[in-house]
Amino acid sequence: MIEDKNQTRTSLKELGEFGLIKHLTQNFKIQHKSTVKGVGDDAAVLDMKGMKTLITTDLLIEGVHFDLSYMPLKHLGYKAVMVNLSDVYAMNGNARQITVSIAVSNRFPLEALEELYEGIHLACKTYTIDLIGGDTTSSTTGLLISITAIGEIKKEDVVYRNTAKPNDLLVVTGDLGASYLGLQVLEREKQVFEVNPDSQPDLTAYSYLIERQLKPEARKDIVKLLKDLEVKPTAMIDISDGLSSEILHICTQSKVGCNLYEEKIPLDPQVISTCEEFDLNSTTVALSGGEDYELLFTISQEDFPKIKANPHLTVIGHIVDESLGVNLVTRANQQIKLTAQGWNALENK
Amino acid sequence: MIEDKNQTRTSLKELGEFGLIKHLTQNFKIQHKSTVKGVGDDAAVLDMKGMKTLITTDLLIEGVHFDLSYMPLKHLGYKAVMVNLSDVYAMNGNARQITVSIAVSNRFPLEALEELYEGIHLACKTYTIDLIGGDTTSSTTGLLISITAIGEIKKEDVVYRNTAKPNDLLVVTGDLGASYLGLQVLEREKQVFEVNPDSQPDLTAYSYLIERQLKPEARKDIVKLLKDLEVKPTAMIDISDGLSSEILHICTQSKVGCNLYEEKIPLDPQVISTCEEFDLNSTTVALSGGEDYELLFTISQEDFPKIKANPHLTVIGHIVDESLGVNLVTRANQQIKLTAQGWNALENK
Repeated sequence: MIEDKNQTRTSLKELGEFGLIKHLTQNFKIQHKSTVKGVGDDAAVLDMKGMKTLITTDLLIEGVHFDLSYMPLKHLGYKAVMVNLSDVYAMNGNARQITVSIAVSNRFPLEALEELYEGIHLACKTYTIDLIGGDTTSSTTGLLISITAIGEIKKEDVVYRNTAKPNDLLVVTGDLGASYLGLQVLEREKQVFEVNPDSQPDLTAYSYLIERQLKPEARKDIVKLLKDLEVKPTAMIDISDGLSSEILHICTQSKVGCNLYEEKIPLDPQVISTCEEFDLNSTTVALSGGEDYELLFTISQEDFPKIKANPHLTVIGHIVDESLGVNLVTRANQQIKLTAQGWNALENK
Repeated sequence: MIEDKNQTRTSLKELGEFGLIKHLTQNFKIQHKSTVKGVGDDAAVLDMKGMKTLITTDLLIEGVHFDLSYMPLKHLGYKAVMVNLSDVYAMNGNARQITVSIAVSNRFPLEALEELYEGIHLACKTYTIDLIGGDTTSSTTGLLISITAIGEIKKEDVVYRNTAKPNDLLVVTGDLGASYLGLQVLEREKQVFEVNPDSQPDLTAYSYLIERQLKPEARKDIVKLLKDLEVKPTAMIDISDGLSSEILHICTQSKVGCNLYEEKIPLDPQVISTCEEFDLNSTTVALSGGEDYELLFTISQEDFPKIKANPHLTVIGHIVDESLGVNLVTRANQQIKLTAQGWNALENK
C-alpha cells in the first residue's frame, strides 16, 4: 500500500554504523539545559539539578507491534516516541530526553531509516525532546525499535499507580477504542489490497480511527492542564493495553475495588458507527482495545468541581473498598466483574 | 553443545506478560538510595541529588551479537549487563541502575528466561546495580536484549572522548584480543560438534580466551583505581569494537593524532599461542578483535609516575598533533596509518 517501487535505495553498508548514526541524527537539536551531552560519547550526560529523574522503556517489533504494509515508517517513528512519552506523562512528569536503538535487516535502505527518523524528529520537535543516544545494528529479520524516555519531575508531583483511595473518582482523558478500530480497518484494507492491488479505498469515514492508530499523541497537555487546574491525581496510569487492564493495575496495586459505569465511557461517533459496521460491542472495544495512550487517573471527590466542565476529562467511575471488587456497571444496571482481556504482547505469537 | 534435552519447559503464555516480569524480577533487590521507585509503574523514579546522570544503551541480537549454541543464557545475561556498564565506566562514572527489555520467540521456555535473568541478577549483585524497569514481548524469530544503563557522576569527574591533548600518554587497561580469539575457538568447536556430536573438546588451553568472550567483566575497578591514584584521564573510551577503532574515535573527536607502539600492546600468553595456532597476527587481533571491554584513556605526562608501576595499566602510545596522523609504530620501527577494521555490527549481515 505505501511502498514506492521507484524510491532511491542506498545500502546501509555504504555508511557504516557510526556514519549511519551521524547521518540520521544530524538534524536533531538539543533543547534542554538538562542535556549536558547528547549523542557522541560512551554515555549521555544529564543534569536534573535536584529534580527527580523518570526512566521508562518500550520495545516495538515488526510483525508483533506493527505491520509495515500499512504503517508508514514516518508514523512508526512518531508513534514509537509517543508510546514512551506517554509513560512519563502517566507519572505526571515532563518528558525531556530519549535514546533510540534500532535493529534493521539489509532489506531496509538508508531512505527507509531516514523516513523513520523523520517521524522521530517530528515527535522530538513537537514534544520538545532531546535525542541523546542509542544503538544501531543489523537484525536477522525485520525492524525493531527500542526507546528509553527520560523525564524530570519535582518530588511532590510524582503520581504512582498504587495510591488510589476508596471514594476517589475515576477519570479518563479523551475517548477510547478508536485506535483498535483503526487497526481493524487497516487490516481489512490490507486484505482487500492483497486481492485487488488496484483498489482505491475511501477511508474518510474512518479518518479519526486511522489517525489514532497510526499517529497517536501522548497527553503532554493533560499534565499541564492538571497543574493549571491545581489537581494532583491520587493515582495515574496510561492506557496502552486497554481500559480494563489499566483499571485492574490501579486497583490491584492500590488494594482497592472500583465501579466503572458503561454509559460513561467516552466514545467518538466514528467508534460507535464502525462498531456497528464491524458488529463489535463498543464497550468491549473500549475495555480491551488498547493503544489509546490516554491517561487514566483517580482524584479526590473534593477536586470534582475543578474538572467537571472540562471537555478533555470524563468521570467514568469511582473507587470502592477492595472487598467490593472491580466491576463494570452496565447500562442495564447489572454489575459484571471486570477482567483483563487487553492486548497481551506475549499472546500475539 | 549446551542444550539439555531433558529440561523442564514452561510455556511463557502460562504467565502472561506482567506475571512474567514479576516472576523474573522478584529476586532483584534495590540497593541504591537514588532508586526511589524501580519496576512496577509506568516509569522508574530516580533521585540523583545534584549529581549528573549518565545514560547509555546497547542492543544485543541473536545471530548478530551472540550464538546460543555456545553462549549459555546465564553468561549472555551477565555479558549484556557488562557491555552497558562498560560505557558508564568509560565516562569515569559509577553505574547505578539498568532497564532490561527482552523479546523472545515462543521456542524459549520460561526456564530459559530464568537462566538469562540469573546472569543479569549475578551481574547486578556483583556490580551493585538496581534493575528498575524494562519491557518483555514476543519476537517473530530469536532473542534480543536491549539494556539501558544509568550512572551518576560529579560534574568535575566526567571524562569525554574529545578532550585528548598532544603529548598526553595513551593508556590501556588489562590485555587485548582474547575475547575475539575465544570466539574463534568456540566457532571452531561448534563446527567440530556439528560433525561429531559426541566429541568432548579439551578447552583448557583456551580457558582465559573463552572466559573473556563468554563472561567479560566491565572495569568498575579502574574507575576506583584512577580515583585512588588521583589521576583524571584527559579522554576515555571503552574498547568494544577493537583498539584501532577506539583510538580513531578519540583522535577524530579530539582533533589530534597518535603514535601507537606495536611492541607495547598488552597480550596474554594464551593470545600469543592461540594466534600462532590459528595463524593470525596478534597485533591485528588486538587492533581489530573487539569485545575486550577494557578502558582506553589518555593522561597528562605529569601523571605518568602515578600509574607506571600499576600492573592493570599499560602505556601504549602518545598523542601527537593532528597533522601527524594516527599511526601504528611497528616492531621494525615503521609507521603505518591506523585504520578502523574493527567489528562493525552493520557488516555482519
